[in-house]
Amino acid sequence: MAIDFTITHRCRETGARTGRVRTPHGDFETPAFMPVGTRGSIKGLTPGQVAATGSEIVLNNAYHLMLRPGDDLVARQGGVHAFMGWDGPILTDSGGYQAFSMADINQVDDEGVTFKSIIDGAPVHLGPERAIEVQNNLGADIIMAFDDCPPAVDPDLAEAARRRRGREGGPGETASHAARLRAAHERTVRWLDRCIAAHRAPDRQALFGIVQGGPDLELRRRSVDEICARELPGYAIGGVAVGEGPETIRHVVEFTAPLLPETRPRYLMGVGYERDIVAAVRAGVDMFDCVLPTRNGRNATIFTRTGRLRLRNARFAEDDGVIEPGCDCEACAGGFARAYLRHLFLAGEMLGPILASIHNIRHFQRLLLDIRRAIREDAWSFVTRAWPVLSADDGGPVAADAESTHPEA
Amino acid sequence: MAIDFTITHRCRETGARTGRVRTPHGDFETPAFMPVGTRGSIKGLTPGQVAATGSEIVLNNAYHLMLRPGDDLVARQGGVHAFMGWDGPILTDSGGYQAFSMADINQVDDEGVTFKSIIDGAPVHLGPERAIEVQNNLGADIIMAFDDCPPAVDPDLAEAARRRRGREGGPGETASHAARLRAAHERTVRWLDRCIAAHRAPDRQALFGIVQGGPDLELRRRSVDEICARELPGYAIGGVAVGEGPETIRHVVEFTAPLLPETRPRYLMGVGYERDIVAAVRAGVDMFDCVLPTRNGRNATIFTRTGRLRLRNARFAEDDGVIEPGCDCEACAGGFARAYLRHLFLAGEMLGPILASIHNIRHFQRLLLDIRRAIREDAWSFVTRAWPVLSADDGGPVAADAESTHPEA
Repeated sequence: MAIDFTITHRCRETGARTGRVRTPHGDFETPAFMPVGTRGSIKGLTPGQVAATGSEIVLNNAYHLMLRPGDDLVARQGGVHAFMGWDGPILTDSGGYQAFSMADINQVDDEGVTFKSIIDGAPVHLGPERAIEVQNNLGADIIMAFDDCPPAVDPDLAEAARRRRGREGGPGETASHAARLRAAHERTVRWLDRCIAAHRAPDRQALFGIVQGGPDLELRRRSVDEICARELPGYAIGGVAVGEGPETIRHVVEFTAPLLPETRPRYLMGVGYERDIVAAVRAGVDMFDCVLPTRNGRNATIFTRTGRLRLRNARFAEDDGVIEPGCDCEACAGGFARAYLRHLFLAGEMLGPILASIHNIRHFQRLLLDIRRAIREDAWSFVTRAWPVLSADDGGPVAADAESTHPEA
Repeated sequence: MAIDFTITHRCRETGARTGRVRTPHGDFETPAFMPVGTRGSIKGLTPGQVAATGSEIVLNNAYHLMLRPGDDLVARQGGVHAFMGWDGPILTDSGGYQAFSMADINQVDDEGVTFKSIIDGAPVHLGPERAIEVQNNLGADIIMAFDDCPPAVDPDLAEAARRRRGREGGPGETASHAARLRAAHERTVRWLDRCIAAHRAPDRQALFGIVQGGPDLELRRRSVDEICARELPGYAIGGVAVGEGPETIRHVVEFTAPLLPETRPRYLMGVGYERDIVAAVRAGVDMFDCVLPTRNGRNATIFTRTGRLRLRNARFAEDDGVIEPGCDCEACAGGFARAYLRHLFLAGEMLGPILASIHNIRHFQRLLLDIRRAIREDAWSFVTRAWPVLSADDGGPVAADAESTHPEA
């Protein structure tokens, strides 16, 4: 098997556990947070700067790299590790989520998705065999099954809810959407078998299955039963943070995570804010990825232990304090003042997004460090005390933001 | 005196010398190349990355920092060193060049320039007293006199020459432009006395005078006589690379540099390509600044010892070699392939400009390292052999590019 997962400690109070995943490119500690390098680069950061944030594993998007520069080109360059200069563990997603949610789709059927390339408009086909071939070419240590990933909420209802000024559309409110979710679950299972059969390098790349089922807990249970009937090195919870609200995300994760095999790493895809992560860890999740630290960083939004700050705000114009006192990231330890960061953003200087992204990724890595310590010491109150944002009204996830946590187009 | 200049070796064959400038923020070796951080940031690079290129002193533009975030704000933040997180020597230009060449000017007279702010259109006045006040507020180790900096070539003739497909307009071809150059010289001398009188911190900030005179060598001699009659810690050659061609630049520099006081650092402003720098060093110049490495880097143009490369070119699509074999910059030593750099630029990823800028700045620092060694060892042929670009037809300066070496708007 390509990876080896060792659980090093189990929380006495919750389902949380610490562990270590051994991969062909080194180990990473779990629970782990993976920054997102959509196109083979964590935006604005050198691999050395990414490593300095404490990140041990990064995520790349097979969908984007397939379209440009092409997975075959990356393979000829020695694979995605050599290509992007990251010697540590890498996970690639399969492109399923992007193909279903971002692409200009021409056709969806049991063979997969045909859509227009965002590069040149040419028709592109992505199905289970091709998604695995792409990921074999990229050569990441962990690769993902190709899944059918519908929106959690009926798109028409969600649109109507948005028109009613942000009221969340209820899950599965129409018979047709419920049928769509069931069909997606069944198709995801059929595609998983085809992914397993197509996988050329199971000794070097660990293929994770993805549980679907939307917000329907009974459908989630059936998906777990069937996906986990296939013996795989890890399992993911997919189809969350795709339009539903934070409470729904939490219910689905708390229900689904404990059903997954105890001895395999559990990966919650595309989530999320600090409270989402803590809740998921307590439910037994081991791996996370999210674009929030980098995307928000580029927009001058800073994560701190007490909540988010918008650095363009005029109140920071003369603020000579660092982004977050006590933080050990390259930006805070380097002594850059909030006033300087604000200036960089107002002047359109690249260094603003760079320093903000470094701080934000380190923010999530420090949260995961504290979470791992809390698990080892059976002391969750330590995390709550150190991270007021977890209990703040304004620092947690909000429905309008929940949609935007997925990898960028 | 704020700085101390020690000449450590004089070339036996040429006017070149090596030296060391001691400043309140540390030393730098000469001949020195200063990367340009227009708005208080070398674009896309952390101060640590800038230092890793071997840069010992950086340049900031008083004009830009005065307009945003404001020199008073920078002063309240502890000065430009603290503001940008660069503990080493810093030089600020006075804003004269920018005010005359970039701004939307309302009025020019003996009091200075009144122009519209590029930030909000408000009227801004810059004259000798205000230019020194701005630089006192910023607090750089070396500050520049406020000079009247007209284009080297009559603007109407230059425009006509451009229409004739790149033929260079001759210098001083009209009586009115010759009069403009004489008036600029005389005004620059008058303004220098007002700068000296206005300077509040001569013990902490070294004020350099600027020689003008355009392409007229006799006017250059008169300017040297009058500017250098004022006892100052250093002198600069201004008014070059402002529209004239490389041969004119060279003649002016080779004529003017040896006239400047032997015991003071000589700074050639805004120049230039590798051949320009080598020629100027041989004429006795000690300091250089130029936006070429960063601006070209952002546009995917790479400097190498054998000439420039455009990394967007399709011929690099599958090139698994580093940017320049043998280079020790962070990008080349990190093993990033040309194919990866090309991908980053095509995908619009920030890391492309960042790695290219790092390589390009290091390229100029390695040239200066070799130049200093050649001077110490009286072995110029070593530089010529190691840098084929110095004798290549296509790697040197071209008239159309010469205009674009000055600090960015």
